[in-house]
Amino acid sequence: MNNEKLTDNVSYDNILEIIRSDLPLIEIRHRLDDFHDRDIADVLQDLNDEEREELFKALGIERFSDVFSYLEDGAEEIQHMPLADAAEILANMDSDDAVDILDKIEDSSVREKLVAMMGDKASKNVKLISSYEEDTIGNMMTTNYILIQNDLSVKAAMRQLISQAEDNDNVSTIYVKDKDGKYYGAIDLRNLIRARENTVLESIIQCNYPFLRVDENITECIEDIKDYSEDSIPVLNQKDEIVGVITAQDVIEAVDDEMSEDYAKLAGLTAEEEDHQPIFKSAMQRLPWLILLLFLGMGVSGVVGIFEKIVMKLAIIVSFQSLVLDMAGNVGTQSLAVTIRILMDKDISGKEKLLFMLKELEIGAINGLILGGMALFAVTVYLCLFKGYLFAAAASIAACVGISLCIAMLVSGLIGALIPIFFDKIHVDPAVASGPLITTINDLVAVITYYGLAAIFLLEHVF
Amino acid sequence: MNNEKLTDNVSYDNILEIIRSDLPLIEIRHRLDDFHDRDIADVLQDLNDEEREELFKALGIERFSDVFSYLEDGAEEIQHMPLADAAEILANMDSDDAVDILDKIEDSSVREKLVAMMGDKASKNVKLISSYEEDTIGNMMTTNYILIQNDLSVKAAMRQLISQAEDNDNVSTIYVKDKDGKYYGAIDLRNLIRARENTVLESIIQCNYPFLRVDENITECIEDIKDYSEDSIPVLNQKDEIVGVITAQDVIEAVDDEMSEDYAKLAGLTAEEEDHQPIFKSAMQRLPWLILLLFLGMGVSGVVGIFEKIVMKLAIIVSFQSLVLDMAGNVGTQSLAVTIRILMDKDISGKEKLLFMLKELEIGAINGLILGGMALFAVTVYLCLFKGYLFAAAASIAACVGISLCIAMLVSGLIGALIPIFFDKIHVDPAVASGPLITTINDLVAVITYYGLAAIFLLEHVF
Repeated sequence: MNNEKLTDNVSYDNILEIIRSDLPLIEIRHRLDDFHDRDIADVLQDLNDEEREELFKALGIERFSDVFSYLEDGAEEIQHMPLADAAEILANMDSDDAVDILDKIEDSSVREKLVAMMGDKASKNVKLISSYEEDTIGNMMTTNYILIQNDLSVKAAMRQLISQAEDNDNVSTIYVKDKDGKYYGAIDLRNLIRARENTVLESIIQCNYPFLRVDENITECIEDIKDYSEDSIPVLNQKDEIVGVITAQDVIEAVDDEMSEDYAKLAGLTAEEEDHQPIFKSAMQRLPWLILLLFLGMGVSGVVGIFEKIVMKLAIIVSFQSLVLDMAGNVGTQSLAVTIRILMDKDISGKEKLLFMLKELEIGAINGLILGGMALFAVTVYLCLFKGYLFAAAASIAACVGISLCIAMLVSGLIGALIPIFFDKIHVDPAVASGPLITTINDLVAVITYYGLAAIFLLEHVF
Repeated sequence: MNNEKLTDNVSYDNILEIIRSDLPLIEIRHRLDDFHDRDIADVLQDLNDEEREELFKALGIERFSDVFSYLEDGAEEIQHMPLADAAEILANMDSDDAVDILDKIEDSSVREKLVAMMGDKASKNVKLISSYEEDTIGNMMTTNYILIQNDLSVKAAMRQLISQAEDNDNVSTIYVKDKDGKYYGAIDLRNLIRARENTVLESIIQCNYPFLRVDENITECIEDIKDYSEDSIPVLNQKDEIVGVITAQDVIEAVDDEMSEDYAKLAGLTAEEEDHQPIFKSAMQRLPWLILLLFLGMGVSGVVGIFEKIVMKLAIIVSFQSLVLDMAGNVGTQSLAVTIRILMDKDISGKEKLLFMLKELEIGAINGLILGGMALFAVTVYLCLFKGYLFAAAASIAACVGISLCIAMLVSGLIGALIPIFFDKIHVDPAVASGPLITTINDLVAVITYYGLAAIFLLEHVF
């Protein structure tokens, strides 16, 4: 638990003191009005059952539910409560937060009981959100928004806003439907507030305000949603009716999730791991990639085996195998990471992809030349000084290392871009599939170049 | 450029048609009111100079500046404009957006001229934001917020809101100062709208609303800001006065930046690369990590060199070196990635760190046993069938591979967690520093275990 807060760290003690005081409930409630839901949530999780009961009574169901939304382990807490209380809290939370908690309850019969007890409106919303697949906009949206009719007067619109604002706190954009109930546009609250009584509502409705569809894939539209920089964007069903909104808070969560996923995939983790999951589960999640790599690695071993005879005659060259392979691997990873980000962020044309691969090839070549030169120098010095080789022999071996390093890095740069672009083209997630293949191809290229050069130049000419 | 939009893709053509029409300017303006700034920005970047001029006249400076904020290459555009126009646009943009553009203008004399021409208020705001260092809250904040006095009546507060809302569009939270100008609290706009005329303003002010300090480091407080899920959080200077706010949009950007940085570091990139930067610059950015790895790799090569004699006598074991090293590397990367995320997200205690390292060790051990077993089997089969080894010899070599694989993976899991925790402890960025060291240590452990086992068991007992 991170216990830093943005409120000077005195809030926690103050809130605790208020809750533990002998003040009448109404006074406790009144004093807690001055604190942020999140800070109260922080205290809530440390309270004993009796104090919780007290807090629940003091805050009332609505505020308590708001506070409850901020708990990190809300699902666990809710399972320790009487079903009726739990259902009431869930019913008063934002429907997407309620779905998040319900999803974490493992016992499906408890889940169903809770949903049934939540009351018609809340349970309808929860069922609606749960009905969409996990990666879709519909599953991420909240049903907390203001919706008015487009034929109202400014005054009537304001009255509608005030009445709906009691239950919905996403008020900064007000959505508008036409007489058939279809999405019509959006009003910036600022414009409604500033409108005079004789202003025609139509004149402050933006009819081409962006919208999303319930079944859109989050990954595919998250960049676009970000681009609009709005506090909320409406979500329409197939009948063009608003069924929810995506808020900036949802976007923050989605961006975080997307990036964490890319990050995990780059490291060869099939899924992001949760904090306290069992060790065996973590081990199993990491296993698939490792098994694949083991078998691909066996292939590389087979290729190294071909060069057994060279190794027998010139065992010293084995020393530098790890160097050449590691460097090729590193360049490939860099290239892969850059390529993945570009593929995720943009739609790029075929020509741009070609140019991009060429760029990665050139970067590999530039760095290959620099590092190949350094290796040439360092290996020569090492062999002469520490291994007692003559300069000519040392330089030949070093040249072999330097040249194959350069070639391997150049190829790795290209492969690191080519493979993910290829997987993206055939609609396989490049972030997952590319890593193992790139490692293997780069290893093969490096091994063949290195031992191949050694076979040609060292065995025949030098020794 | 990503040209997908959330508005059914017809907006672009409609907007273009309106701009190119012969309608009077006022009518063009009126019709464009129906479209989102971002969609107009999309069209703007494809317009010729004459059409831009027309659009500028039609929209007026305020709306045009709003549209301009959405341009991807605003800095470039602004440098192609007459200085006076450019300054006027910048003055009408959110101050943090203006700073972003100004920061990208390379010629400092142009920059200074523009700031000087922006008018007192805007140039003061821009100078204020620029005065804070790049990674601080002060540099990220915007000065676009509503601030009222705490002794107003609800009606007077509403009047203030309406008048300030003309210039400021972050209205969903209204900030309150006391008579000395110090930060006093925040009002949820929803509560102000719902308040009756005789409500005391004090009763709807939340006095312990979270706040930030101008000089706080973004990385250190971003998790906390996320936790509050607010549309905006005020930023105070040392005198407890509000000088700006951080909006949810800023948080989205910051989360994106932070995660991209972690991602880049995991791949051994010193900085996130921009889309169209010169190849040489990209090459140089990737070079430092590679040079470091080259020299660390030389160390590993030196250690492999020690085992030259064994290699000469038993060249086949070289085949499986890459296998053992690659697998250890993969386990280390997985462990590193998981550790980095945990270190970034949470403050964890020393005891939790120990438990965590133990967990990574156990995961390495479990997967090491599984994969070691698989390798034992696969290598035996390979050597018997393809290399003509007798079963006893093949199994001995395979046992050597399997056992060292298991040990190397176990150690790599531990090292992958230990090294970043150590760097974090001594306040060195673990995401940057850990990679090279982990690779090297893992390589060394793997090489010594593998060839060491081979030396002990294979040379003396089998052959």
